Amino acid sequence: MVPTHIEHIGIAVESLEQAIPFYETAFGLKCYSIEEVKDQKVRTAFFKVGQTKIELLESTDPEGPIGKFLEKKGQGLHHIAFAVEGLQERLNELDQKDVKLIDTTPRKGAEGLNIAFLHPKSTFGVLTELCEQPKQ
Amino acid sequence: MVPTHIEHIGIAVESLEQAIPFYETAFGLKCYSIEEVKDQKVRTAFFKVGQTKIELLESTDPEGPIGKFLEKKGQGLHHIAFAVEGLQERLNELDQKDVKLIDTTPRKGAEGLNIAFLHPKSTFGVLTELCEQPKQ
Repeated sequence: MVPTHIEHIGIAVESLEQAIPFYETAFGLKCYSIEEVKDQKVRTAFFKVGQTKIELLESTDPEGPIGKFLEKKGQGLHHIAFAVEGLQERLNELDQKDVKLIDTTPRKGAEGLNIAFLHPKSTFGVLTELCEQPKQ
Repeated sequence: MVPTHIEHIGIAVESLEQAIPFYETAFGLKCYSIEEVKDQKVRTAFFKVGQTKIELLESTDPEGPIGKFLEKKGQGLHHIAFAVEGLQERLNELDQKDVKLIDTTPRKGAEGLNIAFLHPKSTFGVLTELCEQPKQ
């Protein structure tokens, strides 16, 4: 499918209020957006590092995916997202190659992107997201 | 410190022989280098995605850092590495800001880079590496 770049790296944190100042002060990065994604039960904070974004993820519900991740594994790296073109075709291709998909069709993610997740069982334990800029 | 980009994403895998063909076939990426880093007790395989490399890490010793990680957590995302300039000064800066360092001075990593790790206790659970191209 040949992704063009790493769109973002998702990091689960207990508290954006604690983590954002750390990323700003220690790493000199600027948080340019905070956004709630209600259907994912998260609040997200974004930083840009070259082509790639750091997406901090704070749970808004212990029963949501980040709430469960934090309870089971604690804070840390959660997922990586590849930028691709033609997301639905890429998903079809992967399905034909027996890659297990969490989303068989794209849905809306943070920042208005079309996104889909692949199952970590198929990707050597790495929760992997594909992202596409929606057509204007 | 303002990193320029994400230099690489480190992923722990049980077997390069199994993981490399997956990254090549499913994701269309090309493995351009396999390298053993003896003092880290790993074999690494590199793929390029835009500015960033995917570094697959296979343990060569169950007592090494990746061996222990795999035993405790299984396969998955292991660390992220920021590209910086002036690595020793960046480490001094972070030390002054009470960020806990694993390496207080740079050492040699894969691909001839100067590298240093920060402690995940200081970085919200994310094992974080800083990398610098050595001066020619």
